[in-house]
Amino acid sequence: MTPPDGSLVDGIPADRVGVRDRGLHYGDGLFETLAVRAGEPLNWEAHLERLEEGGRRLSLPVPPADLLLDEVRRVSGGVDRCVVKLILTRGEGGRGYRPPDEARARRIVIASPWPDYPPERFDRGIQVRLCRVRLGRNPALAGLKHLGRLEQVLARAEWSDPEIHEGLMLDEPGHPVEGTMSNLFLVRGDGMLTADLSAAGVAGVMRRRVLEAAAGLGIEVVVRELTMEDICRASEAFFCNSLIGLWPVRRWLLEPVLEHDDWPLTRRLRNRLLEQGWLP
Amino acid sequence: MTPPDGSLVDGIPADRVGVRDRGLHYGDGLFETLAVRAGEPLNWEAHLERLEEGGRRLSLPVPPADLLLDEVRRVSGGVDRCVVKLILTRGEGGRGYRPPDEARARRIVIASPWPDYPPERFDRGIQVRLCRVRLGRNPALAGLKHLGRLEQVLARAEWSDPEIHEGLMLDEPGHPVEGTMSNLFLVRGDGMLTADLSAAGVAGVMRRRVLEAAAGLGIEVVVRELTMEDICRASEAFFCNSLIGLWPVRRWLLEPVLEHDDWPLTRRLRNRLLEQGWLP
Repeated sequence: MTPPDGSLVDGIPADRVGVRDRGLHYGDGLFETLAVRAGEPLNWEAHLERLEEGGRRLSLPVPPADLLLDEVRRVSGGVDRCVVKLILTRGEGGRGYRPPDEARARRIVIASPWPDYPPERFDRGIQVRLCRVRLGRNPALAGLKHLGRLEQVLARAEWSDPEIHEGLMLDEPGHPVEGTMSNLFLVRGDGMLTADLSAAGVAGVMRRRVLEAAAGLGIEVVVRELTMEDICRASEAFFCNSLIGLWPVRRWLLEPVLEHDDWPLTRRLRNRLLEQGWLP
Repeated sequence: MTPPDGSLVDGIPADRVGVRDRGLHYGDGLFETLAVRAGEPLNWEAHLERLEEGGRRLSLPVPPADLLLDEVRRVSGGVDRCVVKLILTRGEGGRGYRPPDEARARRIVIASPWPDYPPERFDRGIQVRLCRVRLGRNPALAGLKHLGRLEQVLARAEWSDPEIHEGLMLDEPGHPVEGTMSNLFLVRGDGMLTADLSAAGVAGVMRRRVLEAAAGLGIEVVVRELTMEDICRASEAFFCNSLIGLWPVRRWLLEPVLEHDDWPLTRRLRNRLLEQGWLP
């Protein structure tokens, strides 16, 4: 079977979009990255809720859920596994930065092959470096999965070593926030910590699922500004997103290097997520 | 004559670009907005230098200047006046945020009609409001004219009153930085102030020309972090960009409202810029 590589623009098969699209010009839009199995996007309701929250914050009307779901299914071609990226932009129009008075979202739905992350990454854990590029703080954009991701691009460009699997990003004042493509959780004692995202970071769907799974297991999660000391004092740490699931940290490439050789609480959480059907 | 509305993608007439372009997905690219007269972009060398500086910072190779200039001329159709937006994206490729190892810029060159800003805006001055949306601080992106401009979009969406001509944007801690689409200069005594852009803001080409014109006139310009008090204490203020030239402030819509009824130093500067051929 050929890998899915199709795309729809406003529901019509197309691999191009207008050069005047505000998504291209200004990053004026939102996206969701979906793990799709046999045409069904995992955690669809959670993705949709985040999209709607983003739409509210950007005053960008989100198209009907049924329409979006239909387009995700169509573009996936029903293959066993693939990734579908659902992009909403504010389309064309407006004068300069000013959005058009009657905003209408343009839908760009793109299928890609399932990434070949080695399945043993959970069992063996990952190596994580500290990125030099930081996350600017801006409550107006924080939490949103918007189209302006140059900070992540520059951070991810800092390394090419395939044995380094993720990079930790700090906000401008130096608080750990998340990975370049994932959210971060730290284990301390019986509980967990994760970064408050009210000024920087992306509120990931898998992060939300982890919070729900932790609640289900009675594990307390404190959401607050993190420090490097929190990382040093954690007994376990993991990064998560909708495609990778949970990746526990084996080695933080800091000075000095920090190592974790087991992650029992992360394992419990992951089992819970598997039971709920929330992991790809 | 019909207004120019053509576009070139990598030198080929096209009004569409691939849906997988990294400019759309991540804001991974740069742009220049050019005032073009009879095919000749104003301040071309200055635009080119900024583009090359941006390319260095993003590790995005800027195509040869001759090629870019040729495409700007072609797309303008030689009309008396138009705007040409020159966008460079990192094209397609790479895995997620990670840029492809062999970066190559995609060129998107788009002509638009000259905007109908009333010419009396210089003589009468403009009204400026204070935007609620702020600019995140990030030295990795500061100064760059990159494709992630959602802060400006949200700030510009705060008002629709055509009698308000620009919005003042503060950085996160509350320092005045620039307008939604322009840079800000303040006059105090015999000299001027403008914001330091090492953590937020766009280093505008007209800002550079103003600095050069001020130097030519022996006017001292202090570049530093600004405060709201600097705005209150200024005897004149103006916003500038490559299309509007200089717009002096008649009224700051602050509490209390601040008014300026003349702008002699701004006038001197503007005459100098006109003599140099730097204003559209």
